[in-house]
Amino acid sequence: MTTNEQAVPRTFREKIQHLVLHPAFQPTIIAVIILNGLVIVAESYRPGNEVLLLLDTIIVWIFVVELILKVTGLGIKGYFSEAWNIFDFTIVALSLAFYNTPLVSVLRLIRVLRLIRMIPAIPALRKIIDSLMRSLPALTGILGLTTLIFSIYAIIGTTFFRGVLPDEFFGSFHSSLFTLLQVVTFESWASQVARPIIAEIPWAWFYFVSFIIIGALVILNLVVAVILDYLGHEDEEAQQKHMVRMQEENEALRKDVQEIKELLIAQQKNNK
Amino acid sequence: MTTNEQAVPRTFREKIQHLVLHPAFQPTIIAVIILNGLVIVAESYRPGNEVLLLLDTIIVWIFVVELILKVTGLGIKGYFSEAWNIFDFTIVALSLAFYNTPLVSVLRLIRVLRLIRMIPAIPALRKIIDSLMRSLPALTGILGLTTLIFSIYAIIGTTFFRGVLPDEFFGSFHSSLFTLLQVVTFESWASQVARPIIAEIPWAWFYFVSFIIIGALVILNLVVAVILDYLGHEDEEAQQKHMVRMQEENEALRKDVQEIKELLIAQQKNNK
Amino acid sequence: MTTNEQAVPRTFREKIQHLVLHPAFQPTIIAVIILNGLVIVAESYRPGNEVLLLLDTIIVWIFVVELILKVTGLGIKGYFSEAWNIFDFTIVALSLAFYNTPLVSVLRLIRVLRLIRMIPAIPALRKIIDSLMRSLPALTGILGLTTLIFSIYAIIGTTFFRGVLPDEFFGSFHSSLFTLLQVVTFESWASQVARPIIAEIPWAWFYFVSFIIIGALVILNLVVAVILDYLGHEDEEAQQKHMVRMQEENEALRKDVQEIKELLIAQQKNNK
Amino acid sequence: MTTNEQAVPRTFREKIQHLVLHPAFQPTIIAVIILNGLVIVAESYRPGNEVLLLLDTIIVWIFVVELILKVTGLGIKGYFSEAWNIFDFTIVALSLAFYNTPLVSVLRLIRVLRLIRMIPAIPALRKIIDSLMRSLPALTGILGLTTLIFSIYAIIGTTFFRGVLPDEFFGSFHSSLFTLLQVVTFESWASQVARPIIAEIPWAWFYFVSFIIIGALVILNLVVAVILDYLGHEDEEAQQKHMVRMQEENEALRKDVQEIKELLIAQQKNNK
Repeated sequence: MTTNEQAVPRTFREKIQHLVLHPAFQPTIIAVIILNGLVIVAESYRPGNEVLLLLDTIIVWIFVVELILKVTGLGIKGYFSEAWNIFDFTIVALSLAFYNTPLVSVLRLIRVLRLIRMIPAIPALRKIIDSLMRSLPALTGILGLTTLIFSIYAIIGTTFFRGVLPDEFFGSFHSSLFTLLQVVTFESWASQVARPIIAEIPWAWFYFVSFIIIGALVILNLVVAVILDYLGHEDEEAQQKHMVRMQEENEALRKDVQEIKELLIAQQKNNK
Repeated sequence: MTTNEQAVPRTFREKIQHLVLHPAFQPTIIAVIILNGLVIVAESYRPGNEVLLLLDTIIVWIFVVELILKVTGLGIKGYFSEAWNIFDFTIVALSLAFYNTPLVSVLRLIRVLRLIRMIPAIPALRKIIDSLMRSLPALTGILGLTTLIFSIYAIIGTTFFRGVLPDEFFGSFHSSLFTLLQVVTFESWASQVARPIIAEIPWAWFYFVSFIIIGALVILNLVVAVILDYLGHEDEEAQQKHMVRMQEENEALRKDVQEIKELLIAQQKNNK
Repeated sequence: MTTNEQAVPRTFREKIQHLVLHPAFQPTIIAVIILNGLVIVAESYRPGNEVLLLLDTIIVWIFVVELILKVTGLGIKGYFSEAWNIFDFTIVALSLAFYNTPLVSVLRLIRVLRLIRMIPAIPALRKIIDSLMRSLPALTGILGLTTLIFSIYAIIGTTFFRGVLPDEFFGSFHSSLFTLLQVVTFESWASQVARPIIAEIPWAWFYFVSFIIIGALVILNLVVAVILDYLGHEDEEAQQKHMVRMQEENEALRKDVQEIKELLIAQQKNNK
Repeated sequence: MTTNEQAVPRTFREKIQHLVLHPAFQPTIIAVIILNGLVIVAESYRPGNEVLLLLDTIIVWIFVVELILKVTGLGIKGYFSEAWNIFDFTIVALSLAFYNTPLVSVLRLIRVLRLIRMIPAIPALRKIIDSLMRSLPALTGILGLTTLIFSIYAIIGTTFFRGVLPDEFFGSFHSSLFTLLQVVTFESWASQVARPIIAEIPWAWFYFVSFIIIGALVILNLVVAVILDYLGHEDEEAQQKHMVRMQEENEALRKDVQEIKELLIAQQKNNK
């Protein structure tokens, strides 16, 4: 369009790169993903509507074209070097692979999972997930402790309360884990779980009260750990800025003082 | 009242401005709004009581007079330049418009909404709402993510759990959203929602457990984001005060050192 | 006991002051209050037990004697100048006044309220209550807003949902307030309150969802306000210590620099 | 293995010490404990399975050997000087003592409690428990206040609501405590506990509303106390580092200024 040769992409790949990095490219894709969401919601109200199915097919092909453009533009190595792109690729590939599957459930699930593409596409969402991922290492200890506490209580529950309530509560290790999740979220823990068991096994009150107190303490620590982790990062930055500024001012001052010292020493030599 | 001509408002508009800005004007209006609240509460105990209806009519006319005074005093432009005044105006205008409506429900709703006028009238309340509004931009990312997660889970729920529970739970996209709000507030999530579904569709435990963990993580992040946002504002202020003070002291010190340097240089010139 | 006349209290009042301020006096009273608690708990298991009733009577008389000693020792003005003492006096006076009342309920209530005396007696408890009291002013705005929001929703609820559920839910303004407290604590808000109403009045979902979101936001702000209030107090202290230390060091430095300046000026005069 | 005699342990005890401190020793024990956990979970699915029982026996004997090695290596005094080792010893000793007990329940409980050994074995878990322990003193006041509030409300509840609900709710002091724990976790507090009581004793609304507000306030204070305690420790460290750095820079500056002063004074003496 311009005669300036440097700005005009010459090779085919450069042209595609130019297109992929165009400021209107990403917003268009976001719009298509949001349209995809609206189509899926509309489909849940009118299943099998032909217009919606057609729109859905068009959207999948737009995603396929977008993927091909990106892989061509950035090169296979460049594209797959970022974790989010691998995720994108997997979802689009699955969409294509199960395009005409007779397994309607799988098809529908993949169609919904395509919405997760919104996370890497919108920077604000991406930032939250990235910062969540970064705060995970600080939580490994607490998550390990939670697993241990849940396991110990689940085994005790399975061993001693098996017969008291229906099997879906303490019938097996995994049912007990689910019941403990119900207890730790305070959902009907007393009315549905603890009271009927205590009526038959009186010492069970200690089991539930101790689990609730330990559970609340661990959750409290989890919250505090997350807050401190975030605060830590912010504080360090602020602290460092403060430090750099202070050092600059101090250095300016010391330079002046050093000059004075040199002046005085020079003076003394002159005097002699 | 005084012979000092400058303090006495001369034009009609100045007189009204004088009245509106009088220190007793705003407290009177607050008292009328609180009285309005008491009348409405009393009316809910004795509907159709004539004394209360008369009081209500008087209060509406006080509000209308207040509005006219304020618009006259501040000028139309001056009055509508503040967002809270537009809100005030709308409520009073609606009160008048639906004054004799046969739609009793609408009339009652507007009567109650008049109480919201307390927020702009009382500075302490206004401050909280203003600071809430200011912290909203920091939350857009998390709110967007919440919408996305709710939508994905609602569609999966509608698709797979439609037939299991009565239609008010997972019968449509909007029922699913409501059910998910119930689950995320931990309200009967296991006893009323998850357990009956898991009894028929065993893999549903993963749906509910993952939703609860993701939901709790997102809420935790929301809390942390709000706390950090507030702390950030406070810290910045404190940091800046600290900085200003430090810089002042540093400048005083540097000035002294500069003077010494000049003295020394002057001395050296004298010596030569 | 000692021959040193200054330490020995001479007047009757001084003797009592000496007794009241004795390091073993307060712990004895705390022990009696704790014993009082044990007696009351024991009585709840064996109502009318004579030994326990005797112990209770003895404890009341110990409290009366303690009160008389304190009032005598500190003087009426000195005693009543502290708010906690007025509280102490009221409870002991009520204990005496209703000592032989036929109103058993009142008697029992006062007996239990005597345990609250533990708060002023034990410094760790007193400190928490005092700091709670101090953080109340920072919360007035949010408490006012909470009252306003609850009132508006209670009136709307009473007006529109009166007939749908039994009268104990939205039958009157005060029942609505109680139901809203139940909703804001997420207790059966959907299963018991919202779902039956939405089944008849579809737009009610907006009432409940908006109330839950606004309620959660306000509670979140309350938590943040309390945390910031505490942090603020702590930070200010730390900041001030930091400031004082920095200023001391800065002053020492400036003093040195000033001395150098004076030396130089003196030198210059000498040279001339 | 090496000819260097100093690295090779010579006495029997040194050999064992060498073994216990070997970098592969602790991970091996952690692996055995995790295997222990898997065996116990597997046993809950297949009770009485012979392979699992054999594995369990082998694991107990590995623990016994580990214990003997550690006691020998570190010496009895050295071993028992650490609190966690006493805990370890107790659990292994109990495992042996009840090895062939006919009390199956006790046996099973001890088998599960052996998993707690994971906490001292894995540093990340140990750190959390240690920091929890360290934050306990800061919480004694609030825990004491919680006990007091629960006791007062439990006695009032037992006294006045005894007959209204079944005995498992307010029938005795300890049932009331349990019911209050249910109320403070917001579990069916209105639907199951408060509403039926208020229907018979109208003033009971004040009992429940005040308990919920006080309970929420106390929990809020507990959370804030824990956060401040952690923040306090972190802040102090950061503050101290900051201080040390500032002092170092300040000292360097003051040294320079002092040197200048000395130079000037020397100059003045020379001049005279």
